[in-house]
Amino acid sequence: MKTLLRGIQLNGKPTNILINGNRFESVNAPDNAYANTAIECHRYAILPAFYNAHNHAAMTILRGYADDMPLQTWLEDHIWPKERAMGRAEVYEGSVMAINEMISSGTVFFNDMYFSMSRTATAVREAGIRAAIGVTYMDSYSDKMKASKEERICNWMEDQDSMIQITAAPHAVYTVSGENLQKLYRLARDHGRRFHIHVSETRKEVEDCMKAFGMTPVRYLDKLGVLGPDVIAAHCVHVDREEWDILAERGVTVVHCPCSNMKLGSGRFPYEMAIESGVRVTLGTDGCSSNNNLDMREEMKFAALLAKLNGDTSLLSAPEVLKWATVNGAEAFGIDAGVIADGKLADAIIVDLASPRMRPCYNLISNWVYAADSSCIRMVLCNGKIILDKRS
Amino acid sequence: MKTLLRGIQLNGKPTNILINGNRFESVNAPDNAYANTAIECHRYAILPAFYNAHNHAAMTILRGYADDMPLQTWLEDHIWPKERAMGRAEVYEGSVMAINEMISSGTVFFNDMYFSMSRTATAVREAGIRAAIGVTYMDSYSDKMKASKEERICNWMEDQDSMIQITAAPHAVYTVSGENLQKLYRLARDHGRRFHIHVSETRKEVEDCMKAFGMTPVRYLDKLGVLGPDVIAAHCVHVDREEWDILAERGVTVVHCPCSNMKLGSGRFPYEMAIESGVRVTLGTDGCSSNNNLDMREEMKFAALLAKLNGDTSLLSAPEVLKWATVNGAEAFGIDAGVIADGKLADAIIVDLASPRMRPCYNLISNWVYAADSSCIRMVLCNGKIILDKRS
Repeated sequence: MKTLLRGIQLNGKPTNILINGNRFESVNAPDNAYANTAIECHRYAILPAFYNAHNHAAMTILRGYADDMPLQTWLEDHIWPKERAMGRAEVYEGSVMAINEMISSGTVFFNDMYFSMSRTATAVREAGIRAAIGVTYMDSYSDKMKASKEERICNWMEDQDSMIQITAAPHAVYTVSGENLQKLYRLARDHGRRFHIHVSETRKEVEDCMKAFGMTPVRYLDKLGVLGPDVIAAHCVHVDREEWDILAERGVTVVHCPCSNMKLGSGRFPYEMAIESGVRVTLGTDGCSSNNNLDMREEMKFAALLAKLNGDTSLLSAPEVLKWATVNGAEAFGIDAGVIADGKLADAIIVDLASPRMRPCYNLISNWVYAADSSCIRMVLCNGKIILDKRS
Repeated sequence: MKTLLRGIQLNGKPTNILINGNRFESVNAPDNAYANTAIECHRYAILPAFYNAHNHAAMTILRGYADDMPLQTWLEDHIWPKERAMGRAEVYEGSVMAINEMISSGTVFFNDMYFSMSRTATAVREAGIRAAIGVTYMDSYSDKMKASKEERICNWMEDQDSMIQITAAPHAVYTVSGENLQKLYRLARDHGRRFHIHVSETRKEVEDCMKAFGMTPVRYLDKLGVLGPDVIAAHCVHVDREEWDILAERGVTVVHCPCSNMKLGSGRFPYEMAIESGVRVTLGTDGCSSNNNLDMREEMKFAALLAKLNGDTSLLSAPEVLKWATVNGAEAFGIDAGVIADGKLADAIIVDLASPRMRPCYNLISNWVYAADSSCIRMVLCNGKIILDKRS
C-alpha cells in the first residue's frame, strides 16, 4: 500500500513524499511515482509527529475537576478520593478521551504510568497509535498485586505487535524501597523493558530523600545501581550540577514537563545545566489534572519561553525544543522515527500553511513552536496510516 | 435585527440568548422569542470575547523573522532594519494578518501602538472589530511629524463611529522627554483620549531611569503628573511594592504580557504585589515578533501558570485570569462589554463542548483557560455581528 504526498513542503521546499507500508520510502519521489493514493499537498508542510514521554492518560477524565488550590488539598481532598472511586471503565473512558485529544494535536506515542493499564492498552490498539504502558508499582500494594506486577514486567504482551511496549514503572523513591527498585530494575533489564520513574519533581521529595537516605534522589538511585540507558526519569526539576553529570554519564533520558511543573508550583527546570550536561531531554505533558491538556505543541512553547525567562534569550531555540518533543522522544523509546527521512517509520503532522497563525512563513519551525496551535493541523500519520484527516 | 442563540450554555446551564442590534437583549429569553435568525446551540457554550490590551498588530508581518538571539542583536540587526524598510502597504498587510488571527482566536478588540496607523485603522474597519489606535510619539521624530502627531491626538477620527478610539501613545520614558510626556498627557486629557505607554519592561529601563532622573519609571511618571485613570501602562515587570500602590491609587490600568516578557527574558511579572495592590490588570500579547502569536487564550494559560511557578498554586485562578483578559480589558477602554449579560454589547466567543479538549466539563472556565485552544471556537461575535462562523 503506497501513498504519495504530492508537492508538500519539507524543510522549506516542495517535494513528493512516498510512503510504502509503514515507512517513508522516499522524501524526494518523482512526480510520476506509482501510489495507490495520491494526496495534493501544495498548501501543506510536513513536520515530525510528537512523542509524549510522560503521561497519565486516563487522568484526562479528571480534567478541570480541581485546580488552583494548595498542592496537598488538591491531592488529598480532591484527586486521590476521585481516583479511588475510578474503576476499569473510567480508565478506559479517560484513555479514549486522552488519545482523541493527543491525535488531534499531533501526538502518535505516549509513555504512560497509571493503573488498570490493560484498559489503556485496549484504547491504544483501537486508535492505532503507539504507547509505552507502565506497570506501575508501589510498596503499598498487596503482596499478591506486587507478584502480579512482577509477572507482567516479565511476560505481558511480549508476543504482540510493535505498537505497544511494556515498561517497569516504580512510582518514585518515596513510594518504592531501594530493594524493590533494584528488583524491578533487574526484571526490566532481563526482559528488555524500560524503567519509568518520577525523579526529583519537588523540593520536598529531595529534602525527604536527604532525611531518609542521606543523599539526593539521583545519587541514591545511582548508588542502588538503577540508572542506565533504559531509564526514563520524569521531571528532574531539583537536580544539581553533579547529578546532571551522573544522569548524562549513565545515559538516562530525562522528561521535562513545563506546564505541570508550573501549575503545581514545582519550580523552573534547570535548562542551563541539563543542556550543558548533554543528557537526552524529552518533553511530556504529565496527566491532565496538572496541565490541563496533552498538547505537545503548547508544551514546546512553554519550555522554550520558560528557559528564556531569566534573561538568556538564546537558550532553548525553536529547533532544539522541537527535537526534544520529537526525535529525542522517539529515540528514547527505540522508535525508528522522529524525522521525516527515507526509511524512517511514517509518523508525521501535516500543517496548513494558509492558517492565520502560519503566515507569513519566514521560518516554519519558529511558527510551529511559537505561533501555531492544533487548528493548523490537517492530517496526522502514524505508522504509515492517516489517523486524522481534517482537509476541507 | 434580532438573533437567537437557542439552548446555549451560560454559566453551566442551557439558556436562550437574544441579541438585538449590537447588544444582548436577554440572556434568558423564552423558547418562542421572536428573532430574524435562530441558531441551534445545544452543543455550545458562550464565553466573553477577548480584549487585547497591548499590541503592535502590523508586526505580525515579521512573525518568525528572527528569534532565539540576544535582545540587542535581535532588535538592532534584525527587527529595526526590517521595520525601517516597511511602508504603509506592509503595515496594512500585517494588520490584516493580525486581525484574521485575532478573530480566529476570539479577540474583538486590540490596543495598538505602531506607525502608519491609518492603515491599521482601515484594516480594523474592514473587519468590523474594535480597536484603540495609538498615535505613537518619540522625541526622535522631526518637528513636522511631532506637530502632526499632536494634531491627530486632538482631532483624528473624532466624528466617526464607536468601534475605533484614538490614544496618545508616547513610547516610553527613555524615548520621550518629561516635558513632551506632560504635553501629550494634557492633550490626551483635554480631548478625552487614553494615554498608552511602555513602563518598566526591563531591568535596564529601570536602571537607566534611575541614572537619568534619580528615580524609577513609575515614580518619575507620577512626579510628572502623568498617571491617572486613563493611563494604560504596558508590561510593569520591574515595579516595586510602593510603585504598585502608586499605580493603584492613580487608577492606572496595567497590561501584563507574559509570553513577551518570557521570550525577551524580561522577567516574571510580580503577580503577588500587583494583585495585592488592587490595581486593574489586563492582558496583552504584545507584537508577534516577541510572542509569536496574538492568542489571548494561550496568554491566559501562560499568566496563570507563571504566577504559580514559585510554589503558590492558588495564585491567579482560572476565573481571575479570564477576568483580566475580558472584562478588565473592556472596562479599561470604556467598552460596555466583557460579560454576557442583559444590556451589554454583544461581544462573545462560542465554543464547542464536544471538542476533545473540552471533555469532560467539570468546569468550563478551567477547561477554557488551561485546556482549550482556538480549535474549540465555533463562532465569534463582535458588536452583535457574527464575525467568525466555523459551524460544520
